[in-house]
Amino acid sequence: MGDTRVEILEAAVDILIESGYDALTTEAIADRLEISHSGVHYHFETKDDLLIALIEEYLTDQLEAKVAFDGPPEKQLPKLLEFRIRGAKTIQQLEIPPPSIQLLAATGGSDDALRQALDTLFEAYVAELTATIRDGVESGVFDTEAPERTAWTLAGLIEGAEVRASHDGSPAPFVWGIEAYVLPALYVDESPTLNVEVDDG
Amino acid sequence: MGDTRVEILEAAVDILIESGYDALTTEAIADRLEISHSGVHYHFETKDDLLIALIEEYLTDQLEAKVAFDGPPEKQLPKLLEFRIRGAKTIQQLEIPPPSIQLLAATGGSDDALRQALDTLFEAYVAELTATIRDGVESGVFDTEAPERTAWTLAGLIEGAEVRASHDGSPAPFVWGIEAYVLPALYVDESPTLNVEVDDG
Repeated sequence: MGDTRVEILEAAVDILIESGYDALTTEAIADRLEISHSGVHYHFETKDDLLIALIEEYLTDQLEAKVAFDGPPEKQLPKLLEFRIRGAKTIQQLEIPPPSIQLLAATGGSDDALRQALDTLFEAYVAELTATIRDGVESGVFDTEAPERTAWTLAGLIEGAEVRASHDGSPAPFVWGIEAYVLPALYVDESPTLNVEVDDG
Repeated sequence: MGDTRVEILEAAVDILIESGYDALTTEAIADRLEISHSGVHYHFETKDDLLIALIEEYLTDQLEAKVAFDGPPEKQLPKLLEFRIRGAKTIQQLEIPPPSIQLLAATGGSDDALRQALDTLFEAYVAELTATIRDGVESGVFDTEAPERTAWTLAGLIEGAEVRASHDGSPAPFVWGIEAYVLPALYVDESPTLNVEVDDG
């Protein structure tokens, strides 16, 4: 049993988190799974193929997580935000650069396929935020004339938190920025506090 | 005349912007300046030494630019913001990753000295924003109980704009986020529009 392709991707994430991008080799993956190098190469011809699949798996996870906490927009928006802020918190605890930075790092942004996969990931997240904000405007719980720009603003602050966390800094000020500036202006009724504990920097 | 050390740093910035991190070699710098490789090595023993000096030069430039537009806090804050948003706009026009990402890219965040230099750069910028916001609170033009967190929020949005620009995206939504959410809550009187033209994404 077990899907080798999925096992390879999971091993790749573990290696990336534990030891960073340089340690991510087909050899390391093969050793960890106790399979042959050619077994890894059968599924992913190049490291780039692997990285792109990795990003696309993350994307699927995110969308699935979103579906899991489907609810009214005023409840769904905090969940969507918390989902990625927890990611930033994990990054801070592990004291590693976020995978997206590590992957970009691999190529200095010069690998178009990889870059495009990262863009797709980020844009899918912004699209979820935008849809949720639009729903909330329609149902009267949110007030904004620019749902998509608001989504970008929120996503940008979370990206800031991730980058900050990757520099051993606290994501706390960015979470605060969302709570203090964006949500109070967006929510017609009282705005929520995000349910994430982040240590002060 | 001419300080070779400064010329090397300027050539390094040009190469980084034109051709990216991989192209940044002592050979490329020596060729561009028509000096010997050892001339480059005399000033910077390793590529890391060069990169760290580069970041510190940027830092100096930023602080000098800040002094150049010294004024009352309500005028100075937009200038400080515009200064870095213009950087994001340049990044978008050049279609390159921002130098900070390129430099992080070089090491995957694993080079502590380089990472620390980048942190120092970012923190100096946040410190300038914080001082300006504190001044404004004292003189009664700004209203916030958390000048430093507000500064992080603003800096984070600009970082978001830079990262976005490096993915061929427009910094516009982040600029809008600053104008629509943060400045109106911060300014006691009418908040300013930032004087930067950024194309819509």
